[in-house]
Amino acid sequence: MDKIVVADNVWILVSTAFVLLMSVPALALFYGGLTKVKSILNTIMMVMVAFGIVSLVWIVYGYSLVFAPDIGGFIGNLQYFFLNSIKPSDAAPAAPNLYHYLFIFFQMTFAAIATALMAGAFVERMKFGAWMLISLLWSTIVYFPVAHWIWGGGWLGDIGVLDFAGGIVIHETSGLAALVGAIILGKRKEPIMLPSSLPLVAIGTGLLWFGWFGFNGGSALAMNAQAVSAALVTTLAAIVGGIVWMVLEWIKFKKPTSLGLFTGIIAGLATITPASGFVDVFGGIVIGVAAAVVCFWAVVYLKNRFKYDDSLDVFGVHGVGGMLGAILLGIFAKEDIGGANGLMYGGGAGLLGKELLALLVVGIYTIILSYVIFKIVDKTIGLRVSRDDEIEGLDEAIHGEKAYIKEH
Amino acid sequence: MDKIVVADNVWILVSTAFVLLMSVPALALFYGGLTKVKSILNTIMMVMVAFGIVSLVWIVYGYSLVFAPDIGGFIGNLQYFFLNSIKPSDAAPAAPNLYHYLFIFFQMTFAAIATALMAGAFVERMKFGAWMLISLLWSTIVYFPVAHWIWGGGWLGDIGVLDFAGGIVIHETSGLAALVGAIILGKRKEPIMLPSSLPLVAIGTGLLWFGWFGFNGGSALAMNAQAVSAALVTTLAAIVGGIVWMVLEWIKFKKPTSLGLFTGIIAGLATITPASGFVDVFGGIVIGVAAAVVCFWAVVYLKNRFKYDDSLDVFGVHGVGGMLGAILLGIFAKEDIGGANGLMYGGGAGLLGKELLALLVVGIYTIILSYVIFKIVDKTIGLRVSRDDEIEGLDEAIHGEKAYIKEH
Amino acid sequence: MDKIVVADNVWILVSTAFVLLMSVPALALFYGGLTKVKSILNTIMMVMVAFGIVSLVWIVYGYSLVFAPDIGGFIGNLQYFFLNSIKPSDAAPAAPNLYHYLFIFFQMTFAAIATALMAGAFVERMKFGAWMLISLLWSTIVYFPVAHWIWGGGWLGDIGVLDFAGGIVIHETSGLAALVGAIILGKRKEPIMLPSSLPLVAIGTGLLWFGWFGFNGGSALAMNAQAVSAALVTTLAAIVGGIVWMVLEWIKFKKPTSLGLFTGIIAGLATITPASGFVDVFGGIVIGVAAAVVCFWAVVYLKNRFKYDDSLDVFGVHGVGGMLGAILLGIFAKEDIGGANGLMYGGGAGLLGKELLALLVVGIYTIILSYVIFKIVDKTIGLRVSRDDEIEGLDEAIHGEKAYIKEH
Repeated sequence: MDKIVVADNVWILVSTAFVLLMSVPALALFYGGLTKVKSILNTIMMVMVAFGIVSLVWIVYGYSLVFAPDIGGFIGNLQYFFLNSIKPSDAAPAAPNLYHYLFIFFQMTFAAIATALMAGAFVERMKFGAWMLISLLWSTIVYFPVAHWIWGGGWLGDIGVLDFAGGIVIHETSGLAALVGAIILGKRKEPIMLPSSLPLVAIGTGLLWFGWFGFNGGSALAMNAQAVSAALVTTLAAIVGGIVWMVLEWIKFKKPTSLGLFTGIIAGLATITPASGFVDVFGGIVIGVAAAVVCFWAVVYLKNRFKYDDSLDVFGVHGVGGMLGAILLGIFAKEDIGGANGLMYGGGAGLLGKELLALLVVGIYTIILSYVIFKIVDKTIGLRVSRDDEIEGLDEAIHGEKAYIKEH
Repeated sequence: MDKIVVADNVWILVSTAFVLLMSVPALALFYGGLTKVKSILNTIMMVMVAFGIVSLVWIVYGYSLVFAPDIGGFIGNLQYFFLNSIKPSDAAPAAPNLYHYLFIFFQMTFAAIATALMAGAFVERMKFGAWMLISLLWSTIVYFPVAHWIWGGGWLGDIGVLDFAGGIVIHETSGLAALVGAIILGKRKEPIMLPSSLPLVAIGTGLLWFGWFGFNGGSALAMNAQAVSAALVTTLAAIVGGIVWMVLEWIKFKKPTSLGLFTGIIAGLATITPASGFVDVFGGIVIGVAAAVVCFWAVVYLKNRFKYDDSLDVFGVHGVGGMLGAILLGIFAKEDIGGANGLMYGGGAGLLGKELLALLVVGIYTIILSYVIFKIVDKTIGLRVSRDDEIEGLDEAIHGEKAYIKEH
Repeated sequence: MDKIVVADNVWILVSTAFVLLMSVPALALFYGGLTKVKSILNTIMMVMVAFGIVSLVWIVYGYSLVFAPDIGGFIGNLQYFFLNSIKPSDAAPAAPNLYHYLFIFFQMTFAAIATALMAGAFVERMKFGAWMLISLLWSTIVYFPVAHWIWGGGWLGDIGVLDFAGGIVIHETSGLAALVGAIILGKRKEPIMLPSSLPLVAIGTGLLWFGWFGFNGGSALAMNAQAVSAALVTTLAAIVGGIVWMVLEWIKFKKPTSLGLFTGIIAGLATITPASGFVDVFGGIVIGVAAAVVCFWAVVYLKNRFKYDDSLDVFGVHGVGGMLGAILLGIFAKEDIGGANGLMYGGGAGLLGKELLALLVVGIYTIILSYVIFKIVDKTIGLRVSRDDEIEGLDEAIHGEKAYIKEH
């Protein structure tokens, strides 16, 4: 117990609150505002129930599978099943400056948002029960193993793969699953984005940005120079991502939109995530520019070319951003920030190679397993609502509610 | 001064900000979104002015009545009238690791939200000036004594009654006063809930949940194992409460609603409140289930049976939840969390008995005194707006405003 | 490195997140909700792009101009150009208990909101590119020098001028620039406030209040008695400001409005800002009353008398409030809070005289330089949109978007 640092626990408990806020209500509002008005409540609920289900699963067996002692590099054992034998005053084995419960709690909010994130690709057409089942299966079969490989003592972490706050563990997995799921689920009858409320998206954007202080800054698992640096470069990448995206639109479509500004901010945030504890201010700004350019291309061209209905651009922004960030980490990592040099600072191609390997392995694993999960759910209880329900809107059809009642 | 712990002060000042956020804007938005559109601003203002009035009264004499040296077990003396003689560098007598001002400030946000909470039972029909007067009288006559009895060195705390963050002190008192007030005030002309904006309720729910980290986690008055545990079990109770409530609706009414999900989350949060520093993860989950089942029953059956117009279910969710949580604390308290064992862990019926005694005494006191207060205000300046004002809507009638202007 | 205090860094990193939240999304929503519905997105974007541009400029040269070693009392040198030679583990020269990067980051959010604040005076009629250019020029030419004079080792700080969190540095400069800009820009075709969404303003108000914990409390640059006291008096001034404003309306116009309550809260917050680390609870309450009375007069009478179109009352609330607060600091400062006595506590007229001198010098400098900046932008790219664009609304005309799509 003598290693517990009180101030570190303050920082990480506050960070935990911040990351919870990112799911509920921030992501729920961000996605809800982008949804057509007749399905906004369904979108909000998708984020919230995924957050809830994955959190409970995390307590029961998820934490153990990710962070308990390793079995063959692939998965943790069940030593911590239902937090078995952990006492409130225990320190976390993975971070002895923190209470064990706090480490579990902080990581819980990551598992939960990883799963909730993909909901944006499925809005306005997925069965609610199917989504609940997918949350359960996907977190268990995809997220927990991958998180173990990189963060929990598994084989990818062992060979030196870095991922500060989840560019691979969270954004790549969730983004690719979103793409796979969107393709299996099929396009909406009206596959365009008609944001019911851009002010709601603005609230979501602002709260996500705020929460990202805890997401990236908290991933230092202590208050130290790395935590401060991570929070700073995160904000710079968000700013640059937002402004560059807006300017790209301005050039290409003649008008800078609020949606472009918000999307660019989120792209910057997602892209800096894996690199945030390893790059300096210059790296953060470069990553912001790259995030805007590449994700803009993915959202505007790639999606149009291949005609999948990634409704709210989960793959284009989070998936592409997360993968891009992991690559740029291999290039711009700087030793005095996080202890490793990338290609540009004399570290050679070693780190970049490891990041690419991890991206490839995790990518293949995620695509295959997500495919299997979505197919199983589709063949059993079915993924998609009826055509009538989709036209009526999911709020009325599934929940019997209207988002706004303005005639009283 | 040598006992001041800097990191503890960081945690409690952050917690104070979080609890302030729970009233303004979280509770204001939660209630506002549930209100009919013609009275939403009035609802928001009810929460905000109650917060303001009680905070000022707290500084003038409330803190002293609750936490100054005890007079006969019943009330504090006036030693701290208008914070008399307290210096910024003083440590708090009740928590020597904290600055005295910080302890005062943190507790201020509790007194304020306790009073603001009951507004939800009176929306769409109460005179604004009457509500201001009630805020003043109720906090003085009901909240301050009860808070003293349990938290401030009074007789109930002395005999060993536990209430970690206010299940009895806050939720029982406010919930019962809401019920008494709603009955005296009478039903609305249109006594149904027509939520003007469920997305606004979603924002309120998310921010309340976030703020509850400070409410329950901060009630440890330090950063330690108990604070971490309290925050964790609070979130688990919220999740379980929300999901179980939604499933109950799904079974009974065939549709899971967003309103049910939000309400269940709040029920879980209210119910875990008194127990949050005393129960473990298992206890938190059980309390979440119980919160959903019992509060669902109160809101759906009890209210329907007795036909009172507790408009936004303050009694059904907060009152019933807070009382239930105090009882479950007597059963599920576990020594290694908070130093006391409940019935289930070999502590015998002693703690449960004390909780029941406190619930009974506080309940009777609250009902009688609240009845007197509401009756006095009714007989003097009157509680209720005119029939015309109610039909027109309170925003226009009382405030001369419209919540939304969409034609420009 | 041995002076770094971990808990202080936690507090200031959290405060930085809080102050960022004040701009994005809080101020953006506060202003957006007050804007006519056809220009709400433009207003939100004005706040956000100003925040982004100034933050980037801050990193490139702003921090250096404000906080690098002084040149003749007027400006910092370029030693820290693009954070040159600063390492993550360095302590801040101006606050050796904090990481240098954290001090830079915290101050960045102040520079950014100072500039963003004035946007409220220009809504519904300014060219978007002109605003971006003004953000760049104004922060460079007005904010950085003034911040250096008072906070960065310049001549006003040297002679003993106090400004705890920016009543002069931020609110006076931004408020006067808003007035100058509004006059040059000219009145809107429909120069009245038609708030598209008062609930959005409520969200903004609540989040601003919450963020102000970091703004004023964080300005102690440590967790100590002054930080706690500053946060407490800030909240009291907000409460008193809100209630008194509402009562003034009630007396004068027969109805207490939500807009009045929100505005009074912000007036209280702005006015206490310079004094928050120097006055006690009594001083905070007096300042709250003064804020409401004087700003109410400025908004209701002054604006009406001189017929300028300070659209969302930036000058009337922030400018007047900030200046008033600096004067009241000279009167109510109390030694045991912040080390200086004002006129009322035996400190003589010295401090008051210095505050008045600073207000005068900064006021003249701001008015002249802001005038030059606005005129230059007007004569080159032009400040104002076309009449057609203004009538159509800026969301459609500039951004090709609608805030709300409710027909799908």
